[in-house]
Amino acid sequence: MQNSFFSRFTPKEPKFFPMLRELSDLVVQTSALLSESVKHNTPEERVDYYHRIKEKEREADGVAHHIFDQLSTTFITPFDREDIHQLASHMDDVIDAINSCAKRIAIYNPRPIGESGHELCRLIDAGAKLIQQSMPELERFRKDSSTLVSYCNQLHDIENRADDIYEEFITRLFKYETDFVEIIKIKEIMHEMERITDMAEYVSKILKNFIVKYA
Amino acid sequence: MQNSFFSRFTPKEPKFFPMLRELSDLVVQTSALLSESVKHNTPEERVDYYHRIKEKEREADGVAHHIFDQLSTTFITPFDREDIHQLASHMDDVIDAINSCAKRIAIYNPRPIGESGHELCRLIDAGAKLIQQSMPELERFRKDSSTLVSYCNQLHDIENRADDIYEEFITRLFKYETDFVEIIKIKEIMHEMERITDMAEYVSKILKNFIVKYA
Amino acid sequence: MQNSFFSRFTPKEPKFFPMLRELSDLVVQTSALLSESVKHNTPEERVDYYHRIKEKEREADGVAHHIFDQLSTTFITPFDREDIHQLASHMDDVIDAINSCAKRIAIYNPRPIGESGHELCRLIDAGAKLIQQSMPELERFRKDSSTLVSYCNQLHDIENRADDIYEEFITRLFKYETDFVEIIKIKEIMHEMERITDMAEYVSKILKNFIVKYA
Repeated sequence: MQNSFFSRFTPKEPKFFPMLRELSDLVVQTSALLSESVKHNTPEERVDYYHRIKEKEREADGVAHHIFDQLSTTFITPFDREDIHQLASHMDDVIDAINSCAKRIAIYNPRPIGESGHELCRLIDAGAKLIQQSMPELERFRKDSSTLVSYCNQLHDIENRADDIYEEFITRLFKYETDFVEIIKIKEIMHEMERITDMAEYVSKILKNFIVKYA
Repeated sequence: MQNSFFSRFTPKEPKFFPMLRELSDLVVQTSALLSESVKHNTPEERVDYYHRIKEKEREADGVAHHIFDQLSTTFITPFDREDIHQLASHMDDVIDAINSCAKRIAIYNPRPIGESGHELCRLIDAGAKLIQQSMPELERFRKDSSTLVSYCNQLHDIENRADDIYEEFITRLFKYETDFVEIIKIKEIMHEMERITDMAEYVSKILKNFIVKYA
Repeated sequence: MQNSFFSRFTPKEPKFFPMLRELSDLVVQTSALLSESVKHNTPEERVDYYHRIKEKEREADGVAHHIFDQLSTTFITPFDREDIHQLASHMDDVIDAINSCAKRIAIYNPRPIGESGHELCRLIDAGAKLIQQSMPELERFRKDSSTLVSYCNQLHDIENRADDIYEEFITRLFKYETDFVEIIKIKEIMHEMERITDMAEYVSKILKNFIVKYA
């Protein structure tokens, strides 16, 4: 449904903003759990953190599903409905990737996660917070998009830095690790961490699309 | 082209529905061939199944191309033309992933595919059938989207279960397999199977977008 | 913003075409540097080529950013603004993938890149040129889309051929290479080359979407 015409005359339906914020809060919470989890290296702790993240991931699924339901039954929304759906769905993808990373740590149970893993987690946390801070901007960017643009650019930079850390880690891994199963395990886990920053950057691409389309 | 206005007064062009169904039938057929193929483990049988899947994949390319051609020359379509294009293109991606999996089995020629591989193939089959069943719903969901929503949710669940099976398989592989080339071979093949369910879930995301946009 | 109505009466804003061409020129230039780089196998030359590609990649980031800025401030564009954004953003992804491939070669520093790698680079070059040639077609395809369709189909074929070359290379690698770190290194690099052709095919999907939507 196009609402470019009617939306000028009809009060906006504002309930999507709190739901999107709720989802972004869950991005921050799962990210914080992952960051904390990599400091605990017993199999039991790893499984425990994975379960706590899994619970949050189910909660996020519920919120995303609720947004989807509301979109299908709401006549007027602040943006085209498919764009809100895209945004919610990509925030959900960030949480899914965090969950998938925690699962790999729990079931592969590799050696202790080193400093590069902690660094990646700090970047993931920074990205999660940028996503969270972007949500209130959705109500403001039509007047001034500069803050939202800056958050998007920072998410892009974070992805780049994560990529560098990953590649440098892999280079050292190839040089110094001799156990090939350990190489594959930790490579998959670190790769998943790097992929979380890809997913977060994807959210920024959706946000940039909002700016291009609506600003 | 937007057809939100004219489409209320003009008879819909219904020929896209049969073509989309044809494409979904090919998803089911290639999926069935893959399922059958993993029960046959000689190099000759593997190559033979790959060739049969390849043939279907070319057929699907033809159908997708035909849809694309028709879209470019049809004035009124039941949905925005780019959405039909997206849907056809993502069904084609499922078939491409099935083809790519069969190719890897044929050319890597790993040890016999085990029970986890069979389980993944059963999930792929179930997903293919859900995609096929979703096609007639495209003519109904504007009145009642509940069936289509349920198919989409099932495709999401299938992807989750496939992910679990894959991860558990990899965990066992890391524990018990000692031949590292065999590890990489089978990991790549199982990963491709898991990716097929990702592609099928992607179709469900497009379908959900139809619901959000048109229901 | 929809411009289906106003665009019939307002002169088009043509400045996006030169910027898109500029970006496509950078696709061709980075691709040519990558092709050349794989003929030079000392660590120093590899690092040097990576730096030259990195520089171009930053230049492309600047152009993409400029397109984004202009889109947000231009009232009438030749196409919906989000579509131009998508196109620019996917050309940028091709360049990012080329950069990422060059980085892996520089930091993993594997044995000399063999004939399959050269073949993949020739395909990447051919794809880059097709993207470049597609840009002037954006001003013509509404009258006659056949040339643009043909370029898109060729980009699809290139991706298929790259896929075949990659898989055959991997098969031989599994058979003849015994050093597992070398296997993983070269596999990641060749995989990144194959992924560049995926990204180039993605550009063709966006172009096909233009045809479906605007032709």
